[in-house]
Amino acid sequence: MQEDSGLSRIQPAAELVRLRLDVAYDGTDFAGWAAQRGQRTVQGELERALATVLRLAEPAPTTCAGRTDAGVHARGQVCHVDVPRPAYSAVPGRDSTHPPAVSLLRRLAGALPADVRVRGVREAPAGFDARFSAVWRRYAYRVCDDLAAADPLRRREVLLHARPLDVAAMNAASHRLLGEHDFAAFCRRREGATTVRRLLDLSWERDASGLAIARVVADAFCHSMVRALVGALLAVGVGQRPVEWPAAVLAGRLRDSAVNVVPPRGLTLEEVGYPPDDELAARAHAARRRRTVEAGDGDSAGAAGS
Amino acid sequence: MQEDSGLSRIQPAAELVRLRLDVAYDGTDFAGWAAQRGQRTVQGELERALATVLRLAEPAPTTCAGRTDAGVHARGQVCHVDVPRPAYSAVPGRDSTHPPAVSLLRRLAGALPADVRVRGVREAPAGFDARFSAVWRRYAYRVCDDLAAADPLRRREVLLHARPLDVAAMNAASHRLLGEHDFAAFCRRREGATTVRRLLDLSWERDASGLAIARVVADAFCHSMVRALVGALLAVGVGQRPVEWPAAVLAGRLRDSAVNVVPPRGLTLEEVGYPPDDELAARAHAARRRRTVEAGDGDSAGAAGS
Repeated sequence: MQEDSGLSRIQPAAELVRLRLDVAYDGTDFAGWAAQRGQRTVQGELERALATVLRLAEPAPTTCAGRTDAGVHARGQVCHVDVPRPAYSAVPGRDSTHPPAVSLLRRLAGALPADVRVRGVREAPAGFDARFSAVWRRYAYRVCDDLAAADPLRRREVLLHARPLDVAAMNAASHRLLGEHDFAAFCRRREGATTVRRLLDLSWERDASGLAIARVVADAFCHSMVRALVGALLAVGVGQRPVEWPAAVLAGRLRDSAVNVVPPRGLTLEEVGYPPDDELAARAHAARRRRTVEAGDGDSAGAAGS
Repeated sequence: MQEDSGLSRIQPAAELVRLRLDVAYDGTDFAGWAAQRGQRTVQGELERALATVLRLAEPAPTTCAGRTDAGVHARGQVCHVDVPRPAYSAVPGRDSTHPPAVSLLRRLAGALPADVRVRGVREAPAGFDARFSAVWRRYAYRVCDDLAAADPLRRREVLLHARPLDVAAMNAASHRLLGEHDFAAFCRRREGATTVRRLLDLSWERDASGLAIARVVADAFCHSMVRALVGALLAVGVGQRPVEWPAAVLAGRLRDSAVNVVPPRGLTLEEVGYPPDDELAARAHAARRRRTVEAGDGDSAGAAGS
């Protein structure tokens, strides 16, 4: 620590390095991603671990691609953080040949609780912003509708559903929702923020163990959007609503109380897509500009948890 | 309950029906399969749920194929239980067309805690004994040796291992252990019980997510045998021991303190094999007879937890 103090006297504004972190977590015991005073959050745990391992005087703020809600999981969350380069370079490695990214990855594994894992650390390419550079987010929603397929080892990430689902009907209903629409009917409204999103994929399949799994990809998501879409589709899957119903709700463009928002347990952020490195800055610029035009809170960049 | 009392007066020894139950559990919060006073066990929870759903005056004892240790999981545990046919036939179903096995499956789902699931209920074929009719048990042991593959959603069933494993070397060492041997070197000794077992498969592979997974199949296992075998093979996998070492330990036929018994966390009983229905009784008879000859406690039928 003494070296750091000496350094900061000589070099009061140390050069910052932007790191990209790939993060996975079991959301069960978290009050979501976003740091909140008095709550256990993924962001809070991650910033605390980074401050410990990098010996920062105060936590460096992280920015993520998808601010997941309480109880929502991630395997492919991406975030960035700007840290002083001297602190990053000084992380002790197993031996002197270890690059700092490898050492930081190992140290974070020891500093984080078992329900959060950092799976990758690298210096971010120029112009990279975990939130504004992202071009799509992919979520999965997992449902077990067959007692013979119930796996207690996966109960934290799978919704148990008492009635069997017709996956073909759910796919027919899902297909009608693809493309760019105003998803206000499936979103919790926020003053001044757009609810127009481009839904790139929404499809269901059975995996080898019999689970019904939705694959949901969009440029960005509004708050609770995936869980409301899945709720509408489950109603189709059990025959309670016709295949045309979710598209009719969408066309209504008003939050519909007949749509059941399913529990967070089954939802996992699986992957975030970014453009090639030479387009990162342009993408981030465009996303930030859209945010300004809307005078919203940046939802259009898709940071809201689904 | 009044009907039951009346029934037992008229018919003091009600006909029994033997049920086969297929059971899955997350072993993390259990003191193993076998009921123990004052401990939370899978058998205890299952017998309590059966007594509730079938309205039995006292719990009916269950017999399982593999008595798993504390912390060991199962996806394919099999057990049998003999219950009065009138109690079984009287389980209320969703409608009158439901056979009692379907109704019992649904009722058990409601009566069991979330970390135990009964995945199948059926009337056992004649001669079926979950323990003595079984011809093989298949376990998996899962290891994550790469921080980039760490999945917090599977942390309850995967061992985290700090050093990378050479799966090819582990397979070469595993291959030398196949066949019928005295596995005393890998077993906790029990007075009078044989430690001869037939190891039918022991092989490692990487799954799509990068985990190293051992597949271990034997006619039966001694206590802690899988975990001791895996411990010896991990020492080969990190280059600490040569490929020939586990076979040399086996040939020593004495418990070797150099063999590290790995934690139960990574171990799951995946499947139990039975012969065709018309061979069930003969198989059970042979296994019981072997037990008597040995004057052991029945380990040779493979009920011991690995």
